[in-house]
Amino acid sequence: MKFNSQISNLPIYEAGKPIELVIREFGIEPQNVVKLASNENPLGCSPLALEAMKESIKCANLYPDDSYYELKESLANLYHVSSKNIVIGSGSDQVIEFIMHAKLNPNTAMLSAGVTFAMYEIYAKHIGAKIYKTSSATHNLNQLKEQYLAHKDEIKVIFLCLPNNPLGECLDANDVYEFISSVDSDTIVVIDGAYMEFAKFKDSKKAINPSDIVKLNNSIYLGTFSKAYGLGGMRVGYGIANDQIITAISKLRAPFNITTPSLAAAIAAIKDQAFITQTLENNFKEMKIFEKFATENGIEFIPSYTNFITFKFDTSRDSTQICDNLLRQGIILRNLKSYGLNAIRITIGTSKQNIKVLETLKKEI
Amino acid sequence: MKFNSQISNLPIYEAGKPIELVIREFGIEPQNVVKLASNENPLGCSPLALEAMKESIKCANLYPDDSYYELKESLANLYHVSSKNIVIGSGSDQVIEFIMHAKLNPNTAMLSAGVTFAMYEIYAKHIGAKIYKTSSATHNLNQLKEQYLAHKDEIKVIFLCLPNNPLGECLDANDVYEFISSVDSDTIVVIDGAYMEFAKFKDSKKAINPSDIVKLNNSIYLGTFSKAYGLGGMRVGYGIANDQIITAISKLRAPFNITTPSLAAAIAAIKDQAFITQTLENNFKEMKIFEKFATENGIEFIPSYTNFITFKFDTSRDSTQICDNLLRQGIILRNLKSYGLNAIRITIGTSKQNIKVLETLKKEI
Repeated sequence: MKFNSQISNLPIYEAGKPIELVIREFGIEPQNVVKLASNENPLGCSPLALEAMKESIKCANLYPDDSYYELKESLANLYHVSSKNIVIGSGSDQVIEFIMHAKLNPNTAMLSAGVTFAMYEIYAKHIGAKIYKTSSATHNLNQLKEQYLAHKDEIKVIFLCLPNNPLGECLDANDVYEFISSVDSDTIVVIDGAYMEFAKFKDSKKAINPSDIVKLNNSIYLGTFSKAYGLGGMRVGYGIANDQIITAISKLRAPFNITTPSLAAAIAAIKDQAFITQTLENNFKEMKIFEKFATENGIEFIPSYTNFITFKFDTSRDSTQICDNLLRQGIILRNLKSYGLNAIRITIGTSKQNIKVLETLKKEI
Repeated sequence: MKFNSQISNLPIYEAGKPIELVIREFGIEPQNVVKLASNENPLGCSPLALEAMKESIKCANLYPDDSYYELKESLANLYHVSSKNIVIGSGSDQVIEFIMHAKLNPNTAMLSAGVTFAMYEIYAKHIGAKIYKTSSATHNLNQLKEQYLAHKDEIKVIFLCLPNNPLGECLDANDVYEFISSVDSDTIVVIDGAYMEFAKFKDSKKAINPSDIVKLNNSIYLGTFSKAYGLGGMRVGYGIANDQIITAISKLRAPFNITTPSLAAAIAAIKDQAFITQTLENNFKEMKIFEKFATENGIEFIPSYTNFITFKFDTSRDSTQICDNLLRQGIILRNLKSYGLNAIRITIGTSKQNIKVLETLKKEI
């Protein structure tokens, strides 16, 4: 059987190794596994969200309210936009997929930073669209502008991952707004704010406001409940943009794209902003331990506006070797070799997890 | 902003009206709403699945094991196939989407019965592929063969919804196998078995076995946890086919496409086949009440192999009027007017729900 031509060359996204796999492959007891590979919230989620899920699973036989009325209203209040400006996705990943299918085809292209969220490229490949990246691994607006101008007719989607996964850097909001205004009205600039809560907390100059984005005709803001909100396992994300963009991409949303408990959890989680503050405070307090470790051990790191930190190694050390050695000891980190970097991304965990990871890492470097 | 040309003409799938909407619009108390519109299991789900979800929500911050190892192993055991023959979707809807994107493009076409699951057509429209249907509303293999032969070069996907949603009829398995063997090896025949547990229980001649489908090079079987398993709100479905087909469509699966509690629920639900038997027995016992009502009131109905029954009205009655009148009284049924039928699809509910629906319906017809 033949498949559409783009299928044959498609890579498969390598998700962070699950705890279950380490248990199966290395026979390590579940309680001894430390997974700091997928930027999950080490504090769990809000007790309000947990309570909402506990109630909601009793209705697991019932499809969710597909209008997502209450969730959209809650997000609209949070961000000072209208619920008509919001689309809900199964993670913000799915909103990326909607955008790609609405704007791209094999005659068009996307543009992103050199090293950024892998799914942008994968979705472009699903469609057979062309992919342009900057030579700079991190976001460099001058390079992005240059590339955009060089391929203006082709590029219909530009991704700014702010702050950037898997590197952690972030642009200033004013520079971003200026960049968007320099882009044609038929090219959409996607502000992927999956980790924006962290960046905003660390430095208010990084804050991109969805209420500013909805005023533009060529940009969309993406948010998620997977990171600061601690609901990675529930798969809820959203896109915020002007009505015209939301109407178009909503047509690609299949009904019931999030689960009944996911909907309940997200609605409840928004009500508990104290949990978010606690998450952010813990994150940046613990991050200092990693920065200190790196400095003391001669490891380069990228100042991070997220809930992870990326350690870059010189040629005397190999990230794959280090990750493999740690894995055998039940510690799961994210090797960035597949991104072309001799680097490891480490999620900021609980104090106990962080101490264990750094103690083990110390012996392996 | 311009979007890909197929977007502008896309319809939006009209999901069954949620209970929340009836509460909001008509001010009816939640406990007085009867929703028999979305073929949800009126008995809920297995207590084992409920228990698994209760445990699992404690890990809502953690992404699921994206290999879906245990779920695939459980399905492989259930169906006597290999886990390599299985792909997991966010509902079987998503597996349909994978198949469409792998096989269709604007130069190709899909074929289905005249009235069948609406998402086939919607996904084809997402891609801009052509849609062929038989003039027969229900599955008519002679007509399907005729249409296929008339447009053989274009048709790359054929849907057989067995039993058929929203009409309820089902073909005999032997006829289906014979049909598949008459179809070219480059055209995939999708056996959508979302309601197959019901059909098999009523008449073993309807049973399509995934273990037979994996031996073929041009067919895929779809199953779901949304119907007999009572997990509609959890969005878990699957496709079973030979390795080559599964490998190709798996490339279009984004990571973490089901939630952490959904994964736990599905694994546990498979272990409780007694719950499935109870569901099936209750369903066909209660269905008799609907059949009797229809006969007594001169309403035509299609003998159903599913968990719903479709009442077809003559010109003296209008399905839209009836549904609207019921809705104001807090009873949600599925009007089939948008399918071009003066008919209503009613999910078989609990005994109490069924009595209330039929008593109210009696006054409206």
